[in-house]
Amino acid sequence: MREIGVGIIGIGTVGAGVVQVLQENADEIERRLGAHLRLVKVADKDIETDRGVRMDRSVLTTDVAEVVENPEIQIVVELVGGYEPAKTFLLRAIRAGKHVVTANKALLAVHGDEIIAAARERGVDLGFEASVGGGIPLLRAVREGMAANRIHTIFGILNGTTNYILTEMKEKGESFERVLREAQKLGYAEADPTFDVEGIDAAHKLTILSTLAFGRKVPFSSVFTEGISRVTPQDIQYAADFGYAVKLLAVAKFDGKRVEARVHPTMIPSNHLLAGVRGVYNAAYIDADFLGPTLYYGQGAGRRATASAVVGDLVELARNVLLGVSWRVPPRGFQEDMLEPAVVKPIDEISCQYYVRAMALDRPGVLSRISGILGEHGISIESVVQKGRDAGQAVPLIIMTHEAREADIRQALGEIDTLGVTLGPPALIRIEG
Amino acid sequence: MREIGVGIIGIGTVGAGVVQVLQENADEIERRLGAHLRLVKVADKDIETDRGVRMDRSVLTTDVAEVVENPEIQIVVELVGGYEPAKTFLLRAIRAGKHVVTANKALLAVHGDEIIAAARERGVDLGFEASVGGGIPLLRAVREGMAANRIHTIFGILNGTTNYILTEMKEKGESFERVLREAQKLGYAEADPTFDVEGIDAAHKLTILSTLAFGRKVPFSSVFTEGISRVTPQDIQYAADFGYAVKLLAVAKFDGKRVEARVHPTMIPSNHLLAGVRGVYNAAYIDADFLGPTLYYGQGAGRRATASAVVGDLVELARNVLLGVSWRVPPRGFQEDMLEPAVVKPIDEISCQYYVRAMALDRPGVLSRISGILGEHGISIESVVQKGRDAGQAVPLIIMTHEAREADIRQALGEIDTLGVTLGPPALIRIEG
Repeated sequence: MREIGVGIIGIGTVGAGVVQVLQENADEIERRLGAHLRLVKVADKDIETDRGVRMDRSVLTTDVAEVVENPEIQIVVELVGGYEPAKTFLLRAIRAGKHVVTANKALLAVHGDEIIAAARERGVDLGFEASVGGGIPLLRAVREGMAANRIHTIFGILNGTTNYILTEMKEKGESFERVLREAQKLGYAEADPTFDVEGIDAAHKLTILSTLAFGRKVPFSSVFTEGISRVTPQDIQYAADFGYAVKLLAVAKFDGKRVEARVHPTMIPSNHLLAGVRGVYNAAYIDADFLGPTLYYGQGAGRRATASAVVGDLVELARNVLLGVSWRVPPRGFQEDMLEPAVVKPIDEISCQYYVRAMALDRPGVLSRISGILGEHGISIESVVQKGRDAGQAVPLIIMTHEAREADIRQALGEIDTLGVTLGPPALIRIEG
Repeated sequence: MREIGVGIIGIGTVGAGVVQVLQENADEIERRLGAHLRLVKVADKDIETDRGVRMDRSVLTTDVAEVVENPEIQIVVELVGGYEPAKTFLLRAIRAGKHVVTANKALLAVHGDEIIAAARERGVDLGFEASVGGGIPLLRAVREGMAANRIHTIFGILNGTTNYILTEMKEKGESFERVLREAQKLGYAEADPTFDVEGIDAAHKLTILSTLAFGRKVPFSSVFTEGISRVTPQDIQYAADFGYAVKLLAVAKFDGKRVEARVHPTMIPSNHLLAGVRGVYNAAYIDADFLGPTLYYGQGAGRRATASAVVGDLVELARNVLLGVSWRVPPRGFQEDMLEPAVVKPIDEISCQYYVRAMALDRPGVLSRISGILGEHGISIESVVQKGRDAGQAVPLIIMTHEAREADIRQALGEIDTLGVTLGPPALIRIEG
């Protein structure tokens, strides 16, 4: 049986998972591929820590050159994470003529152009299924399964940590801070949770996914990002009262001219399939002109699921190696020389329905003044509910608007804030679906 | 720009959809593929009927040979449906060295071995994404996205007609017969609905899907099949009371030794994502050792969605034509010479929980005799509810069992039927998830 040599850089959680798949499922993979994926070398700066997988000592090295320049290795897996030295390692592997697989969404979202250009120049393949949606074969579905379509809408739950936090907040009625601490204890959230809870990780993934879907290069810097730290259990409860669930949604739309791409807490109808995605699970709901809506659901992170995606890419790239072909499918789904930069719609120009919660003084005339300002900005109200009564004190006033422009609602909320009839600036949650 | 010649046999609903995609999305497909898919010839015995798409008269022919033997055509799409003459056409195209794409699940489920052997011998590719789950890129996900995994469980809603009927029965409380007639009027069910409502169509699809998933050839004849015609709105309501939804589920499991494959009305927990799949939509929930559970959802039928899958296959095969390779991925995901026949577990040997509804006489001692028989067969009861009171008359008695063997429950129900305390044989619905 033919062998394909595999090298890994970075033997953390996912790296160890990859080694485990290659060992435990070697026969299944061989029956599919018709060849053996042989782990030749694993490089890491720490090769002493026990990773929970048995590896021959001779496979381990602290010298990256033993992977990227190893003539027995055809495919290099980069699992270092972050920008540097991951980028340098990846580019070294590419320039040495190795096909490469990575799970590094931050790197691809920010430096994708440079890395893909290098791979194209050298004629090597680049697999990155694990970078979005963890184990879910999502990029493959978009890039190949939907190749006949113009894709126009993406709604994604692309970050498991925040989905876990929102699920717990909803089901236990607890505050963001409290659930976050719990998630950190359980290992679902990092010690510094900023990337996850502020929506940056989801924005990285949306950058990659929307570029593949729309065939327009969406710059990471153009993705509007708002995290979940200001969402309260009360907002989640009020949303439920109106028939909505609150999710950190990655939203991207393409009207054929302009792309909008944004990550923010979003209310979606409770009977939408995405509303049923609980805990650390991820899902993407994608709508396309011929296919219509489809949904992909699964584990968006974790050692085993992510390793599944990495090894799926290894199999795909190995098939090309066996046939002596490469760049059969361009990494971003479209021919690189036909990939135009996206024209991105500024957040001010998007339109959707809005949920507004103001802590408003319970006294006559307040609602009239607030709704008056909304009306002046062309925002029509679908419903208003005052939660409780407490004469002269602040009580939650919940306003659901009809579709309105972001710029208008923001200006209106700014003016409402200056009225002096509300306690602090009103909270705003966008509504989709 | 390079051109790939495409021929179509059968210009019905889906065929016309394929022509429409190739016309409307030509530029999008070219930007992905880097080549033009040119429709060279369309053969049908009826080329007079208006199909709702404009085609140059010179493209149409009644002579299949003008497609399968046309030197300008590299890929032939078979959309005739049924066993014959579809099979003859497909084999002619293959023997003429054409790559082939088909949506024909009945043909593949029953004659897959012969067709795949012919394609292998001639070294041509075979695409059949549209045969299971309509437009959902499901086979691609299983065959390639999960290549690193041992897949062990499939729960599929693979027939849109029956899912529509069950959804309507639930939401409107109407009988199977009434909803079926309505579905026929709307074009969601055929004049002869047997293939759909008796689960045969779903069994065809499960045959294909489980073979790809498990890497064992599952014979269509071994798939246990039970339709939805005996499900009543009362059963659906009682199921809901217990926190379950009733779906026609295609279930396949593989324990590493034996495969079980069955299609039958199934109760699944109401909070399971599959329970939220309404109307004509399809979904598959697939569990694998590293990836864990994933779910794929979308339109399982219809002109546009099915055409999306067919053209997705055209793009995939065209990529191979452009590179001069074929059989890059074996059609069933495993190397053909490593594909063993499945050892199929007889239905008698499966185990699950059961819902039993007996119309039992409302008088003392009846429950004791019924539960006594269940006990004698080693079936333990999770709960029993008598619906209503009507002394001396028959009232519904709902029994939910713990996990039991199929042979035991069947034998017990047979004995209960002979007791003379129930009206007609008890109804049985299997429970999964």
